[in-house]
Amino acid sequence: MSKAQATKAHILEQTAALFNRQGYAGSSMADVMRVTGLQKGGIYNHFRSKDQLALEAFDLAAQRTQQRFMGALKGKRQAVDRLMAILSVYGRFLADPPVEGGCPLLNTAIDSDDTHPALRERTQQAMDAWRSLIERIVHKGIARGELVSTADPATVATILIATIEGGIMLSKLYDDPAHLARALTHLETYVLHQLAA
Amino acid sequence: MSKAQATKAHILEQTAALFNRQGYAGSSMADVMRVTGLQKGGIYNHFRSKDQLALEAFDLAAQRTQQRFMGALKGKRQAVDRLMAILSVYGRFLADPPVEGGCPLLNTAIDSDDTHPALRERTQQAMDAWRSLIERIVHKGIARGELVSTADPATVATILIATIEGGIMLSKLYDDPAHLARALTHLETYVLHQLAA
Repeated sequence: MSKAQATKAHILEQTAALFNRQGYAGSSMADVMRVTGLQKGGIYNHFRSKDQLALEAFDLAAQRTQQRFMGALKGKRQAVDRLMAILSVYGRFLADPPVEGGCPLLNTAIDSDDTHPALRERTQQAMDAWRSLIERIVHKGIARGELVSTADPATVATILIATIEGGIMLSKLYDDPAHLARALTHLETYVLHQLAA
Repeated sequence: MSKAQATKAHILEQTAALFNRQGYAGSSMADVMRVTGLQKGGIYNHFRSKDQLALEAFDLAAQRTQQRFMGALKGKRQAVDRLMAILSVYGRFLADPPVEGGCPLLNTAIDSDDTHPALRERTQQAMDAWRSLIERIVHKGIARGELVSTADPATVATILIATIEGGIMLSKLYDDPAHLARALTHLETYVLHQLAA
């Protein structure tokens, strides 16, 4: 990695955590300068605007989250095992978040939905990838007879994501892991008793 | 209502919607001046700071949401009916929100959790009120034999709130009511098949 690449990676790393904690609108260029330890010029050498930096920092945060899934799913072929592996990623999410400040998809969805079309679109794409992953697992699981044929892939994706993200929101609001833990237990029951064939 | 009271109510009304759409950190005093049509002095006559205005605007938004519950619960005594009534509030939430911009509890939880202790505390109090409402319904429902004795009040509150709020987040992100609709159908099944005695 060249020195320029290392600096760019350092800026993205620090800014991803900053935006995830404070939101895009709640973070100023002064905040970016503070967390990176760089002057404005040093930042604008690598990113043409705060907007460009926000989009790339979000991509890094989303990618970090996605890597967790890939690690958990590795070697698991059966649909129920794969859905359980996705839930297991969130069992250690609060104690060891991929990016500090909670779930970047949740935070950026709330941050951007009424205000920032480009960031919203990027969040939709990351959420699409997560939904597709779950939908493919359910499709294959039905085809192989591992899941009940009445399971609806789009519905399973919505229920898993909505309940996990709502659980993270409550646990972050109260600084109490119990809410996410209850959400995950509820979803395990859902997978085992409503989806497994 | 005196003229001063009417002006204060107008400021709170407009600011509650502004903060709910753009977030507290994402809204400047210039935005408050724009949506209220008032000069800075006219606003500071009624609120000593942007912080004070944010707390009172959040209270108004939370109160509006709570009034929806009270309306839906009126005349319903049976625990299953009361839980279904809470879900029904969200059936028309996107088409006719109590305050423009989604759920103020969700938005302010995400907005304040890592950054604004006073607003976070206010959000916790509003969320406490919602959780207590659900917990009381479950307690009474178990005592009267309307709900299964294994139902855990705190868990039911977490599951209902997490799934609803996650569904709102997805529906707002995609501008597609299907996500919240699926979340509500899932919760109706949960109430009827896992909680009802």
